[in-house]
Amino acid sequence: MAVYTQVDDAELIAFLATYDLGELLSCKGIAEGVENSNYYLHTSAGSFILTLYEKRVAEADLPFFLGLMEHLATQGVTCPQPVKNRAGASLGRLAGRPAVIVTFLDGYSIHHPEPVHCAALGEALARLHVAGAGFPLTRANALSVQGWRPLFSPSATRADEVAEGLRELVETELDHLERNWPKGLPGGVIHADLFPDNVFFLGDRISGLIDFYFACTDAYAYDLAICLNAWCFDENHVYQPEKGVALLAAYRRLRPLTAQEIAAFPLLARGAALRFLLTRFVDWLNVPKGALVRPKDPLEYAAKLRFHRAAEGVSGYGLAP
Amino acid sequence: MAVYTQVDDAELIAFLATYDLGELLSCKGIAEGVENSNYYLHTSAGSFILTLYEKRVAEADLPFFLGLMEHLATQGVTCPQPVKNRAGASLGRLAGRPAVIVTFLDGYSIHHPEPVHCAALGEALARLHVAGAGFPLTRANALSVQGWRPLFSPSATRADEVAEGLRELVETELDHLERNWPKGLPGGVIHADLFPDNVFFLGDRISGLIDFYFACTDAYAYDLAICLNAWCFDENHVYQPEKGVALLAAYRRLRPLTAQEIAAFPLLARGAALRFLLTRFVDWLNVPKGALVRPKDPLEYAAKLRFHRAAEGVSGYGLAP
Repeated sequence: MAVYTQVDDAELIAFLATYDLGELLSCKGIAEGVENSNYYLHTSAGSFILTLYEKRVAEADLPFFLGLMEHLATQGVTCPQPVKNRAGASLGRLAGRPAVIVTFLDGYSIHHPEPVHCAALGEALARLHVAGAGFPLTRANALSVQGWRPLFSPSATRADEVAEGLRELVETELDHLERNWPKGLPGGVIHADLFPDNVFFLGDRISGLIDFYFACTDAYAYDLAICLNAWCFDENHVYQPEKGVALLAAYRRLRPLTAQEIAAFPLLARGAALRFLLTRFVDWLNVPKGALVRPKDPLEYAAKLRFHRAAEGVSGYGLAP
Repeated sequence: MAVYTQVDDAELIAFLATYDLGELLSCKGIAEGVENSNYYLHTSAGSFILTLYEKRVAEADLPFFLGLMEHLATQGVTCPQPVKNRAGASLGRLAGRPAVIVTFLDGYSIHHPEPVHCAALGEALARLHVAGAGFPLTRANALSVQGWRPLFSPSATRADEVAEGLRELVETELDHLERNWPKGLPGGVIHADLFPDNVFFLGDRISGLIDFYFACTDAYAYDLAICLNAWCFDENHVYQPEKGVALLAAYRRLRPLTAQEIAAFPLLARGAALRFLLTRFVDWLNVPKGALVRPKDPLEYAAKLRFHRAAEGVSGYGLAP
């Protein structure tokens, strides 16, 4: 849950006066987005989301994120659209922070995705990859293979506090992935964090994608591997082949995978599991004891990583070569 | 900030199916209400607030709170209205908790109230007291004078950890208030927590009152004393006479104070300051070290209490006898 910046009503009214959005009617902090403070904003012009960027998002990256959301909408991908102020700018400043107003999207997150939802996700992810192809900006993925060891090393000696054997698991995996990480896969804009929280449904249909603040330029199949990790395991972290098949088949109908991508997929899936294992591990160590906000369990991704290590090639995921 | 119960989408859809509110479009946890989990709920029938009652609210009190909001609306006081399900009940169950859906009120809280806002508050408080007169249910005020010592005593030895001299201040005050607390003042339904967070404005006009979960049966002038404490001091806890005068004058235009109420007012103001000092003190001690949620400062109310002790009779508040 995000920790909210308190927005003063007078400051907000002055900020809104720089937009053509009418009068302020309501503004409430919402529990959405981990990196930023988000507010449900109601004005006489309609419903919006107000986002204040907290320190974990680099201000220099904002033109990439905001431009991407605008570009995707022109290509038919439903995602929040930055609203421009009277001066024509999307990005403003409120309560000492970079701030934007984006359109409000109806829809809700699915807590227990079924194969039908995984299929819808696969289709949406392929559309996102295709739609992003013409986007001119790039952003390196700081959380890809070269970023993992620097994330882990400073806390490596504490890994076994979290679970016995965790240090060895991570270091063995780092060695393997650093040596074998695929190069030259088809790539472009990826979402890189398309967990169920960031996908809105109305019934069984996707109504929109949100939270593009990890989006970057990387291999498409790596994005698919992140989704497989996030959507296709059950509560006990056991892989659900029917969900994986639904995700992958729907994706491939719109954007066929190359032979190289298929061959690389098991390794990408290991990498994706390790990436979330590592950021959760670091968050786990850095949350103060007794805090009311419980960090996500890094061991969920240790279990997924072990599954991928044991998977025998692509057929383990229902992927025909 | 409230700690939210996660509501599963499938459970929520099943819950909504017991109402005539159409389809679920959106549901987001909001940072409103300290005792409960609240969600902004959008359905094809409009916007609502979904409230799940957490353990600090006694289920046996819910008919009082919900009935009061319905009663007040019939008397022209704008406050959230419980929506009845198809079986005619306001109170349901969701995620293992008592749950209600109430109407959504536009408006926003004023962070730095000016005299004009204090005057609007005085008028609204008087209307609330008059409107509540015909409400048939009663609820004892567990946080009045008889409840203060039991709240303080278990932690009395730790008071000086918070501020030197705090224990003596509280115990002297408890002795004085227990001996002199007024009896037989005009009374009925009071809000008992009408802080700026719980009063919505649109411009300089009040658009609604919320959060009736401390409402109870007690002296009207005590409710006025709570408001004076919450609205009429500046950021440095210095009394602002022009705000106090605006509040009291506006209140008295609609509901004149009796001579007995005026005479008792300075003591009621001390009691109100002590009540919030004590609950904040207990919260302060009970929040785990390093928690991300910072409890409200009990010393704000120690400063206000000291002001009231030094005030020389009612003229100190701008109240003519």
